[in-house]
Amino acid sequence: MTTTNEAEIRGLIDGWVKALHARDVDALVLNYAPDVVSFDVVNPLQRKSVDAVRKRAEEWISSWQGPINSEIRELSITADDDVAFSHHLSRFNGTKKGGGEIDMWIRATLCFGKVDGKWIVTHEHVSVPFDPQSGQASLDLKP
Amino acid sequence: MTTTNEAEIRGLIDGWVKALHARDVDALVLNYAPDVVSFDVVNPLQRKSVDAVRKRAEEWISSWQGPINSEIRELSITADDDVAFSHHLSRFNGTKKGGGEIDMWIRATLCFGKVDGKWIVTHEHVSVPFDPQSGQASLDLKP
Repeated sequence: MTTTNEAEIRGLIDGWVKALHARDVDALVLNYAPDVVSFDVVNPLQRKSVDAVRKRAEEWISSWQGPINSEIRELSITADDDVAFSHHLSRFNGTKKGGGEIDMWIRATLCFGKVDGKWIVTHEHVSVPFDPQSGQASLDLKP
Repeated sequence: MTTTNEAEIRGLIDGWVKALHARDVDALVLNYAPDVVSFDVVNPLQRKSVDAVRKRAEEWISSWQGPINSEIRELSITADDDVAFSHHLSRFNGTKKGGGEIDMWIRATLCFGKVDGKWIVTHEHVSVPFDPQSGQASLDLKP
């Protein structure tokens, strides 16, 4: 059974897919708490404000040439009326500035609180695992 | 204000620190859901059962010589009566079999549901970021 809360969070995630495709940073960070704690795919260890997340998103989006295509798979949403979390796998593909083609899968966990009846992201954790033999981040794994 | 729910989750996290120090795999996976979805620091992209998480924990613990020391920092817990999540930074240090010293920080996000009045882990996400210049996992970052 899909509850209203789950449907609302699904809507936020669908919104990010559209925002990435449109390279729209404002839409991307619209539903983030001012003091969101972000664990990102690349350094540093963490960022602790929506301003820092927005700055990073701007840099990341501007490193792509044209739309950023993303696909959500194995999405799971758990929500009650005030607290929620979700996790999924996400594929990003497109062309980087300079011409390199990117096609990679990441893992994403999103944590939400409700403020004035509206879900906001208070924490995000996005990563790839690494290969313990080589120490290299694993950018070629597929679900 | 710390609620009972938050205190219970804090107790689980403190229990894991003790379980790691004691190299006690049973204690480590005691509060995991059978179908937990785990995004781990190293490959693969995900594991989807407590049995798989337990097997990985056994391998990881057996790669250390003696106790695994861990320290929890910047722990944040958000809980209502049925859904909860937490995030923190964790330092692991000790000696690997073969003699190498490990001292590294990781990011951890834990997601919980309540079953029969007891909190269980339905999802975990543990990672390090990587350096986009070298493609190497960042094992020397400090908070």
